[in-house]
Amino acid sequence: MNAHFANRMARVKPSAIRELLRLGAQPDIISFGGGYPDPALFPLEKLAVVFQEAIVGQGRSALQYTVSTGMPRLREQLAVRMGRERIRCSADNVLILQGAQQGLDLVAKMLIDKDDTIVTENPTFLGALIAFNPYEPRYLAVRTDEEGMDVDQLEHLLKRHSRPKLLYTMPDFQNPTGVTLSLARRRRLIELANRFDLIVLEDTPYREIRFEGEPIPTLKSLDTEERVIYLGSFSKILAPGLRLGWTVASAELTQELGLLKLAADTQCSTLSMAATSLFLERFDVEAHIAVIRETYRRKKQAMLEAIRLKFPPHIRFTNPHGGMFTWLSFEQGFDTARFLAEQALPLARVAYVPGATFFPVTEEANHARFSYTLQDEAAIARGIAALGGLLAGALPAETVR
Amino acid sequence: MNAHFANRMARVKPSAIRELLRLGAQPDIISFGGGYPDPALFPLEKLAVVFQEAIVGQGRSALQYTVSTGMPRLREQLAVRMGRERIRCSADNVLILQGAQQGLDLVAKMLIDKDDTIVTENPTFLGALIAFNPYEPRYLAVRTDEEGMDVDQLEHLLKRHSRPKLLYTMPDFQNPTGVTLSLARRRRLIELANRFDLIVLEDTPYREIRFEGEPIPTLKSLDTEERVIYLGSFSKILAPGLRLGWTVASAELTQELGLLKLAADTQCSTLSMAATSLFLERFDVEAHIAVIRETYRRKKQAMLEAIRLKFPPHIRFTNPHGGMFTWLSFEQGFDTARFLAEQALPLARVAYVPGATFFPVTEEANHARFSYTLQDEAAIARGIAALGGLLAGALPAETVR
Repeated sequence: MNAHFANRMARVKPSAIRELLRLGAQPDIISFGGGYPDPALFPLEKLAVVFQEAIVGQGRSALQYTVSTGMPRLREQLAVRMGRERIRCSADNVLILQGAQQGLDLVAKMLIDKDDTIVTENPTFLGALIAFNPYEPRYLAVRTDEEGMDVDQLEHLLKRHSRPKLLYTMPDFQNPTGVTLSLARRRRLIELANRFDLIVLEDTPYREIRFEGEPIPTLKSLDTEERVIYLGSFSKILAPGLRLGWTVASAELTQELGLLKLAADTQCSTLSMAATSLFLERFDVEAHIAVIRETYRRKKQAMLEAIRLKFPPHIRFTNPHGGMFTWLSFEQGFDTARFLAEQALPLARVAYVPGATFFPVTEEANHARFSYTLQDEAAIARGIAALGGLLAGALPAETVR
Repeated sequence: MNAHFANRMARVKPSAIRELLRLGAQPDIISFGGGYPDPALFPLEKLAVVFQEAIVGQGRSALQYTVSTGMPRLREQLAVRMGRERIRCSADNVLILQGAQQGLDLVAKMLIDKDDTIVTENPTFLGALIAFNPYEPRYLAVRTDEEGMDVDQLEHLLKRHSRPKLLYTMPDFQNPTGVTLSLARRRRLIELANRFDLIVLEDTPYREIRFEGEPIPTLKSLDTEERVIYLGSFSKILAPGLRLGWTVASAELTQELGLLKLAADTQCSTLSMAATSLFLERFDVEAHIAVIRETYRRKKQAMLEAIRLKFPPHIRFTNPHGGMFTWLSFEQGFDTARFLAEQALPLARVAYVPGATFFPVTEEANHARFSYTLQDEAAIARGIAALGGLLAGALPAETVR
């Protein structure tokens, strides 16, 4: 074989999550690993109705090619939905994508050349790093606390470093930490983006899954210079298997991204778009989202209560107000990957995602991401209790060594 | 707005085809433009059955995430199908993609850095140029005649030019010319690929739509050094709205492409894959393809007969043995884009794709791509007759000037 792609190979890290998903799929494992929505919440009957209607009722157009930017009717519906978030836009500002993941890829493809800098939260979404890495960026990872990205450190770093092009953020119930960017910080972030001429990619797939507190305005609604690209997803409110997400951005950026979409895969599934559009027309998606919200609220409470009861008290964890994840921080020196491989999986038959891969620059071994969405409350309690038993044993030993 | 993406904008040409598709969608236009399959051939009832079964009958797994390389069962089925083409492979050599277009993007992303050289036919598929251009390659465009790429010129060019990385070819019923690469040339092409250390991307979405002559072995089946990436599509044999294609390649290349697939959009629609897999299991896809084949054979004959009868005799055109397109060559100095805009569309209400955009290096204005798949035979006869009337008037005038 030739070695043409050898250098390119190094640009793509094999995905730790993918491996873990495989492990988590083993039937006797209680997995808090993958960011899977609860399949019991998929609206099967309603999806069956709208797929049937799209296939047999739309004069075959749902199976033909459509425009690369996405089915016009669905873009109109999304523009109306975004309007409720106080984002002023029309269908021309909306681009339908193959899941939000494709937005990460296309925005990087549009903006990033080798060695360009991307600002991210520290830690940040692994899927974003996987999407960005093939373009060989550098990362500027900004400290994150319970109010999200630390904008003071952001300003300090922006002053010191050569001009980054892109700021990537997940402001609502961030993956992996579950934390939400405060309103004051959102305003500062927009000011800094204007001052330092940044494009902001606001990735917010969990936004509608808020189970406590009031929604905080989107960055896009605070955007004064059309530099925010909003990225949404149907994966968490309908089903990931549909593979539909969308961007909302200026007409200029949308046109550029639309050309890259055309180049990447022509268009999304016409049928998925037609059926999703019908779903929004025929059924009450807000009522459906309310059920998801209530279910995940209960599951989160179950997990946090179990952790409080069963884990050693020095282990810190976040209290997400929505979304799918809590982030656990163990004492310095504790290696969550090693604990997973040597104890959690073989002894407790419990999986989670070690935190190290979520750090773009300097990996920290003593964190873990736990998802509470896939398991029922009894399994959450069982899994956390099993881990707690191990941790009670493991921690002193670790500390002694 | 900032200008970060200004340089990247120049890398993506707005698509001439996209504009024409829009025009061709006007109801009174007879369009020979877009590469649209005939929607009357979509197997609606069968697709309705398998989508229904996938949604309600698969324990919700068809709506959940799956592995990024694609649903294992569908990859197994494709490996068996490829085996009938004498391509030895297993499911591990198969990667499911968002249409064949995504294969063009991911292969370029894997191999091409700025100013790397891609070898193509001259002319070549516009969608491939659109996929490749964002990576800023150079092109080496090889003369093409009725037996496909001229391998003597290919050898000559490979000897003279700095080493290209990728050879892109559509060996069966090429888009836009409709010509098929002969067996002798396929063997030479593989020899040259081995000698000059090229990766070969064999893009063959129309392969199963052959209406005369015997199938010629795929390049992949002749591949002796695992350097051919085979690229197939369900768009022309089931429906483009499903957005499903696939690659067959060495395990090493498949793994690399699979990582880029994960980075690009996580995975294809689980539901589309599940339904397509069920279609292959429940129904006789060969019988369905036989109907497509016979329908397009008749349509091609209708178009070629009409051209022979109605067009001035000096206009040359190819006789495709399969696929969707014939390629017309007018006299030097005739501009098919101008004729389209000034006469064909406004006066005859007929659309086609001017040939210039299919040339990667030096555009030639006197060709056109005609697709015969979308219109019925009466509309084909009417449209060609209307154009023929204009050409009879237009050509002497053009010649006189």
